[in-house]
Amino acid sequence: MSAAEKAALTGGGDFWHTAAVAGVPAITLTDGPHGVRLQRAGDDAGLLDSEPATCFPPAVALGSTWDPELVHRVGAALGEEARAMGVSVLLGPGVNLKRTPLGGRNFEYYAEDPLLTGVLAVEWVRGLQGRGVGASLKHFAVNSQETDRMRVSADVDERTLREVYLRAFRRVVREARPWTVMCAYNKVNGVHASEHRWLLTEVLRDEWGFDGLVVSDWGAVVDRVAAVRAGLDLTMPGPDTAGDEALVRAVEDGALDPAALDTAALDTAAARVLALVDRAVAGADPGATYDVDAHHALAREAASRAVVLLRNEGGLLPLPREGASVAVIGEHARTPRYQGGGSSRVTPTRLDDALAEITALTTAPVVFAAGYALDGDDDGSLAAEAVETARAADVAVVFIGTAEETEGRDRDSLDLPPARVALVERVVAANPRTVVVLSNGAVVRTAPWDRAVPALVEAWLLGQAGGGAVADVLFGVVNPSGRLAETIPLALADHPSHLDFPGEAGHVRYGEGLHVGHRGFDARGQEVAYPFGFGLSYTTFSYGAATASEVDGGVEVRVPVTNDGDRDGREVVQVYGSVLGSAVRRVPRELKGFACVEIPAGRTAEVVVRVPRADLEHWDPRLGRWVVEGGEHVFEVGASSRDLRTAVAVVVGGDDTRVPLTADSTLGEWRADPRGAEVLEQAFAESGGGLGVLADPQVSAFLGSLPLSRLGAFPGSPFDAGVVAELVARVES
Amino acid sequence: MSAAEKAALTGGGDFWHTAAVAGVPAITLTDGPHGVRLQRAGDDAGLLDSEPATCFPPAVALGSTWDPELVHRVGAALGEEARAMGVSVLLGPGVNLKRTPLGGRNFEYYAEDPLLTGVLAVEWVRGLQGRGVGASLKHFAVNSQETDRMRVSADVDERTLREVYLRAFRRVVREARPWTVMCAYNKVNGVHASEHRWLLTEVLRDEWGFDGLVVSDWGAVVDRVAAVRAGLDLTMPGPDTAGDEALVRAVEDGALDPAALDTAALDTAAARVLALVDRAVAGADPGATYDVDAHHALAREAASRAVVLLRNEGGLLPLPREGASVAVIGEHARTPRYQGGGSSRVTPTRLDDALAEITALTTAPVVFAAGYALDGDDDGSLAAEAVETARAADVAVVFIGTAEETEGRDRDSLDLPPARVALVERVVAANPRTVVVLSNGAVVRTAPWDRAVPALVEAWLLGQAGGGAVADVLFGVVNPSGRLAETIPLALADHPSHLDFPGEAGHVRYGEGLHVGHRGFDARGQEVAYPFGFGLSYTTFSYGAATASEVDGGVEVRVPVTNDGDRDGREVVQVYGSVLGSAVRRVPRELKGFACVEIPAGRTAEVVVRVPRADLEHWDPRLGRWVVEGGEHVFEVGASSRDLRTAVAVVVGGDDTRVPLTADSTLGEWRADPRGAEVLEQAFAESGGGLGVLADPQVSAFLGSLPLSRLGAFPGSPFDAGVVAELVARVES
Repeated sequence: MSAAEKAALTGGGDFWHTAAVAGVPAITLTDGPHGVRLQRAGDDAGLLDSEPATCFPPAVALGSTWDPELVHRVGAALGEEARAMGVSVLLGPGVNLKRTPLGGRNFEYYAEDPLLTGVLAVEWVRGLQGRGVGASLKHFAVNSQETDRMRVSADVDERTLREVYLRAFRRVVREARPWTVMCAYNKVNGVHASEHRWLLTEVLRDEWGFDGLVVSDWGAVVDRVAAVRAGLDLTMPGPDTAGDEALVRAVEDGALDPAALDTAALDTAAARVLALVDRAVAGADPGATYDVDAHHALAREAASRAVVLLRNEGGLLPLPREGASVAVIGEHARTPRYQGGGSSRVTPTRLDDALAEITALTTAPVVFAAGYALDGDDDGSLAAEAVETARAADVAVVFIGTAEETEGRDRDSLDLPPARVALVERVVAANPRTVVVLSNGAVVRTAPWDRAVPALVEAWLLGQAGGGAVADVLFGVVNPSGRLAETIPLALADHPSHLDFPGEAGHVRYGEGLHVGHRGFDARGQEVAYPFGFGLSYTTFSYGAATASEVDGGVEVRVPVTNDGDRDGREVVQVYGSVLGSAVRRVPRELKGFACVEIPAGRTAEVVVRVPRADLEHWDPRLGRWVVEGGEHVFEVGASSRDLRTAVAVVVGGDDTRVPLTADSTLGEWRADPRGAEVLEQAFAESGGGLGVLADPQVSAFLGSLPLSRLGAFPGSPFDAGVVAELVARVES
Repeated sequence: MSAAEKAALTGGGDFWHTAAVAGVPAITLTDGPHGVRLQRAGDDAGLLDSEPATCFPPAVALGSTWDPELVHRVGAALGEEARAMGVSVLLGPGVNLKRTPLGGRNFEYYAEDPLLTGVLAVEWVRGLQGRGVGASLKHFAVNSQETDRMRVSADVDERTLREVYLRAFRRVVREARPWTVMCAYNKVNGVHASEHRWLLTEVLRDEWGFDGLVVSDWGAVVDRVAAVRAGLDLTMPGPDTAGDEALVRAVEDGALDPAALDTAALDTAAARVLALVDRAVAGADPGATYDVDAHHALAREAASRAVVLLRNEGGLLPLPREGASVAVIGEHARTPRYQGGGSSRVTPTRLDDALAEITALTTAPVVFAAGYALDGDDDGSLAAEAVETARAADVAVVFIGTAEETEGRDRDSLDLPPARVALVERVVAANPRTVVVLSNGAVVRTAPWDRAVPALVEAWLLGQAGGGAVADVLFGVVNPSGRLAETIPLALADHPSHLDFPGEAGHVRYGEGLHVGHRGFDARGQEVAYPFGFGLSYTTFSYGAATASEVDGGVEVRVPVTNDGDRDGREVVQVYGSVLGSAVRRVPRELKGFACVEIPAGRTAEVVVRVPRADLEHWDPRLGRWVVEGGEHVFEVGASSRDLRTAVAVVVGGDDTRVPLTADSTLGEWRADPRGAEVLEQAFAESGGGLGVLADPQVSAFLGSLPLSRLGAFPGSPFDAGVVAELVARVES
């Protein structure tokens, strides 16, 4: 293959296909992740209508299920649909963290937590790829906002980057081996992700062993040559004739120009495209179909499991299926908000609304009042009518939600439209038996109005079957088991990201460091409206004492959990870890594992949560590697990050975390190190009193932060450069 | 002068003197800043005893006076003492910000606010240098912590650096022209301050016009050649023979070695040392003396003005000078804490204690009980005795404080020793007429115990005359007018710096950015124990309506303030600014000016606060310069940052803040710019429909963040590189 052919092959054929070059067939990549968005012919920019496909619950909802098995099944169903539609790569999962609740694309991401995100995404990829369709793990990396997303540099220190923002990517690459990884639009520490050799090659391939293809986000490549040099294989969309030519020139300039491209880089990229095409061809099945009804049913099941019950005072829920008339209030009950805007928007195969589904599940009268108009055009009569409708019924269920959330634009506020909140307040005043159902792609502020609402249901964006799923939960057909994958704060200003979002002048500083989401709220000891991991059930669970043991260098935590009620239910058992007396900065507790378990009424389940050793590691920037700190690791087990019922400690054998002593190590560090202290003591003795004032304890404490190399600056000090060099040689020999 | 002589001249002669070389006399530099710490001969490391000198109130106390005139007099008195002791340069003022309340050296710094710090330090330098003694503005820069202070890199974005951490330095350099600036120990964004050319030369000299000498902090130089190249003139202490030799070699290597030193750099450094010696010789007065008694009186005056009255329920203070017996509780009343540890520690000329001074000011019986032992060695009998002593008296005054604060070590906690708090609680229970007097070098946590204490006096570290100053305030000889120069938070975890202090692995991220101190508490809307600028008086002041006008490009704010009581008093009138609808990130309000005014009982003062244009500027990192944003600037005027009594808006003419459009500017930016919109509109018209989907409003909104240069990536787009270049040429022509 000529250089020109190789260049063309790495440049995309059109908006949604790779290039057919030299007999290599083109393959199709389409948007996801919660449905197959196969573009209709003729829509060049690829942003408008698409062929019908099941609109599964977006990631915000899948994240709230905390159920890897369920997410696996959704991934598999997506794979079936993609295969049936001739799609080789579905562009997902999105595993960026919800750094800020304002993130416009939060509905496409799972959680504010890297472990939860990673565990779920692994299963999504396994499910999908098990059907012969490739995943595209995105957006690599640190793409946590839409504001200025094509240019902004996410400025993050390496430990935070590794432990928080890259951690889910690492897990998915290692455990699920995605066919492709998609680079992000933004810059990371000043370098475009599409040109970030450290990210795309050193970390992704050399460290994690990624063996697939790196594709650009659509339009993310600024400089084709720089991108290929960094390890980007496929630039989309295409064709990019100017870029192809630049690549060929760069190869031809070859060794003469240090800025030119190593021939091998283009060869490698082209080979990876070929390998992807091979996988695609092997996975394709031209005769494949899928069961539309079964997928709709799965969409309903997944959606019902994503619903988070936030409040249920006096057991108002579940509603009886007979005898109690229901006022259904809110246009969203009839015109559902079920997905967000932008590239993930799917044309659904059908669309259920809550009003019809509620009507189907009760034999009692159901009366509807819109309450508001979606375009905000209401003279007050809709609200007034809704209040009267609510007053006349036995129970009122009010559906409200955010205005559209979309890719490309972050939100300005956590607040629901004030008129919707006012409507809720009036309905509650008219009928104290009021349930509020929220539709939103990311958390909204619920304080303080939620205190007056007896039952509050967080129903996110649930996909095409969300209406039925909500009805299932309201009437107890499904006992809710969704748990918050993101903290609901009392106010936006409380959020750890608040002072550093969205940045300006091309930079956003990740100033909260490791303290993302719940980790930050915990570190500051702040009250929240509803904590990470929280969610109610129609039954209650009690926890016995946890036990734990070291297994294969990791830890296995066991805890008996009993369903104390008379209704079957599902509990999400959460394990949070910390390290007693850690030598490094730690957040108060990190999610280390979880289990989503069905427990029949009155029964006890012995729940086992494995924490592999990799999840005990932290990144040591001085050593430049992952290490497990030895010592007492504490595991708190409970039903949310702030509802911890039992704790157990395990002594874990640590890795070698000793940092070698150098001339730049301080007097204090030398003294704290057993070998250093010995060598220093010897030197002090040999100096025969030449240390003068260093012998004074007050002075010595004061000088504890002085690097050994700097001691020579003080008159009379025997620690000149030669002496220090000798001490270093002695201590590290 | 030979290269070797020049090198020796820039290297220091011994611990406290420059080198006497080639007939150039040595001059003396000594520690300050709150007293002349002239080292006794024979103490080589310079950390132990020193000659007696007046121990004026440390900067923590001077900062709380908010009184530039008073600080000027203290500076002048220090100049007199230095001159009388043959000292040419006094190492101060310290103008680093109190980024964290845990900073071990906070007692040496003025405030958490750059404007307050700068205004006071200007007068300190003017006072000092008016006596022929040079100042050393320190520690340049961003030296806000002691932890790992010789190595840690303060990682700060440029806007924060300029607007917050460098701002006081800029003011002092421009307005007071200090003889010397001292570089800090730490690194700034990865580069040692001693080798930081951008800081030491580009900003300090080229931008600010500094014409003095840059001296190293003692032991801060790692590499003499790199330091001289960056603009460091004098390395202390000396001699540094190895460094001298390295300098000579570097000069000799000359033009051959790109890493070598430009001859001119060493010449310049040596010339600056000579210029400093000239100034010192001109300023010296071998026969000078100073009035020890007058300086002690000034120390008492300044200390009394630094005391901040935090609580005074029911007007418990001032105490009557007759008729009410006083129980004085607490070892600190007898053994004062009056300064911090480390290089600033002065041997005082005398030392007043509060117990004796209280006894001198009242005719009623005064009984003392130690309450605790300073070494913590108390079996409970001291406390028990104190409680009984308090019970038997008409009034109890309890003196408690922190354990020693010192250079070289940050604090671990904001809490007072628990036993001291317990003592307070027991004394209050025994005698509800209890006053608590705090001695501490930086804020301590007062919540929640302060709620039970009727009167709370923050007496900081007040220098050698602090005992009398406290007595003066307690008995109303002085009407307190001190105001908090640092916020007292409810809890350490509330502090804006909390998640990013003290850093680790050699870096501390200034994650709160501009939101330092009160700016951060305001940005998060957090409750605090006592806000920045707060302090009570024995009288009350009311504010009329503020007016404002533009003067010389800046703003003059006028407000009538009335002393409503029957006691003369001093009010600190504070002006906070904000900009309505600002295009850049702003903190909710910034201190823009203040006035400390004496107002007789029943009288009204017309207070004028000038805000020069430089204080309206913010740093625009895109333009790389200071700009004033045009529009409505709001000035809130009041008695603290959270006690704002009146506000006024002024329309201020702005600087040109337009950022030129480039190919990297987004579609949204082009559209928001009048010229850009016009050019784009024209191009759209000319393209004759070739823009396809861009015409769709939903797509267009979605693509608003797309740089123009990236539009070419989309198939069918007419925006190839040539077209974009032409548009850029057209728009900026």
